[in-house]
Amino acid sequence: MPNLTILARNAERYRQHLQAKNLPQLKIIASTGDALTPETAAQTEIILGEPRLIREHLDTLTKLRWAQSIWAGVEPLVVPSLRQDYLLTNVKEVFGELMSEYIFGHLLAHLRHIFIHRDAQKEKNWVGKNTGSLRGKTLGIVGIGSIGAQVAKTAKFFGMTVHGYTFSSENSPDVDRYFHQNLPEFASSVDYLVNILPNTPATQKIFNTTVFEALPPHAIFINVGRGAAVDDDALLNALQRESIAAAVLDVFAEEPLPKEHPFWETPKLQMTFHTSAPSLPEDIVQLFAKNYYRYLNGEELQHQIDFARGY
Amino acid sequence: MPNLTILARNAERYRQHLQAKNLPQLKIIASTGDALTPETAAQTEIILGEPRLIREHLDTLTKLRWAQSIWAGVEPLVVPSLRQDYLLTNVKEVFGELMSEYIFGHLLAHLRHIFIHRDAQKEKNWVGKNTGSLRGKTLGIVGIGSIGAQVAKTAKFFGMTVHGYTFSSENSPDVDRYFHQNLPEFASSVDYLVNILPNTPATQKIFNTTVFEALPPHAIFINVGRGAAVDDDALLNALQRESIAAAVLDVFAEEPLPKEHPFWETPKLQMTFHTSAPSLPEDIVQLFAKNYYRYLNGEELQHQIDFARGY
Repeated sequence: MPNLTILARNAERYRQHLQAKNLPQLKIIASTGDALTPETAAQTEIILGEPRLIREHLDTLTKLRWAQSIWAGVEPLVVPSLRQDYLLTNVKEVFGELMSEYIFGHLLAHLRHIFIHRDAQKEKNWVGKNTGSLRGKTLGIVGIGSIGAQVAKTAKFFGMTVHGYTFSSENSPDVDRYFHQNLPEFASSVDYLVNILPNTPATQKIFNTTVFEALPPHAIFINVGRGAAVDDDALLNALQRESIAAAVLDVFAEEPLPKEHPFWETPKLQMTFHTSAPSLPEDIVQLFAKNYYRYLNGEELQHQIDFARGY
Repeated sequence: MPNLTILARNAERYRQHLQAKNLPQLKIIASTGDALTPETAAQTEIILGEPRLIREHLDTLTKLRWAQSIWAGVEPLVVPSLRQDYLLTNVKEVFGELMSEYIFGHLLAHLRHIFIHRDAQKEKNWVGKNTGSLRGKTLGIVGIGSIGAQVAKTAKFFGMTVHGYTFSSENSPDVDRYFHQNLPEFASSVDYLVNILPNTPATQKIFNTTVFEALPPHAIFINVGRGAAVDDDALLNALQRESIAAAVLDVFAEEPLPKEHPFWETPKLQMTFHTSAPSLPEDIVQLFAKNYYRYLNGEELQHQIDFARGY
């Protein structure tokens, strides 16, 4: 009978969804968004929770065999100095759909003049000007894992051409053209650029002045990957010099972003607050349940993290 | 050698796209957004243009055999007192994609808190609250022609359930459940309601108090069909009493909407300016070219209007 601990700010909602599933043999021994007693920690075989909270308890989770992260990002747990003697899984597919909603919601808000019309209405100004369209445009996606593949699929649905930048893989049928090196050349081939890369040492500040200058002036840059991938000053300069048209940022090098950071007041820069792919408990529990049956049967778990690679 | 006249405000762009097509035998004898001389009118066999402008010249277009409208709405031409001795075609497929962009752009702007985040940024307020998602929600579409079918397809792509309200047809594979009567019952079954109906006598003010009260309080009402289908006072009351959450209107009983109309200043009511499906000359010319080959071969034209039905 595996003992499960839920460690998340909205632990109670996870517990409710999990209980409704009636998973065989599973025993929920704790659900909290806070501290775990050493006794409960020592009895925990499976943990479902936020990477940061799991990390805080790693030392006392002596019987831990499997940790299911409720987020895609597991950086706090893949630090080389930390133990790696358990299975770590994250969530993937579900974020592809949510990220697509975010990316296309924001692209359409720009292209279809949703903000312009909202402002025009305030001034009682009938603006009968035609708007743009996604169709025929080229979307550049940096990072084509399961999320990028879903974004590519959505772009194809809207009649776009898709260019994908990856280190090596070419697995998505919805990518029309792959690039593996020369990010500026890739940037010069697209209308809109989306970063979905996880945070790894190889991706620090790869979106720099050279990349932004390679983009066409009507380009929109969207970052839903990690803030560390962007050279903030280079982006600010690119917007000021109008070498790109707009930026939409959901992630930042420091979160919450300090109030003195210039991003808050930069025109044409739309901030959101790390909400592009919210972890919805019902989705996460659905995914956990599937993995739990694999766990019981001794099968390989889905979305297992490679500690060495970091994702 | 068929003589073609282009009659549209942006006639020149249509002419350029059309000339690039090099259609066999076709002779463009005029392109104007304005008046047509009686001589030119009398030589016109085919007209490509705006319904209102075509209507103004109907009497002098003595040799007219085919009029291709550049818009979906052809109301000015389907008045019983006007001649009906020519083929009238409108544009369809292309609007389905553009309308889908509009509808899902606005739905996502609401669900994914794009306005809320924009306002939060102005106040330097980090709002880490989870947003909603389209997945699992039910979209109600009133009017399932070629546009409605494309909107249904888009809704399915985003993981929604689709309810369709039509007078009789059940042709879309993407509609999960059809309703043919009792609009309030239909309204009570959906999360979001979109009107795509053309303007016909049978659809005057069908969106009334009873329908708005049947919608759930989180509902968003989107009108991309015709303004005459909405009882404006009923909608204003529904928004004031919060019996629905928001409305997005692209069409109005009178356009441009008079500045004294209360819609301009109604909170939770987003206006746009009959721009949900702009006629892009390249798209229209593409569609015209296909129909032109059918015309030359004596085949039935696509998107032919039934004068009696009015669409």
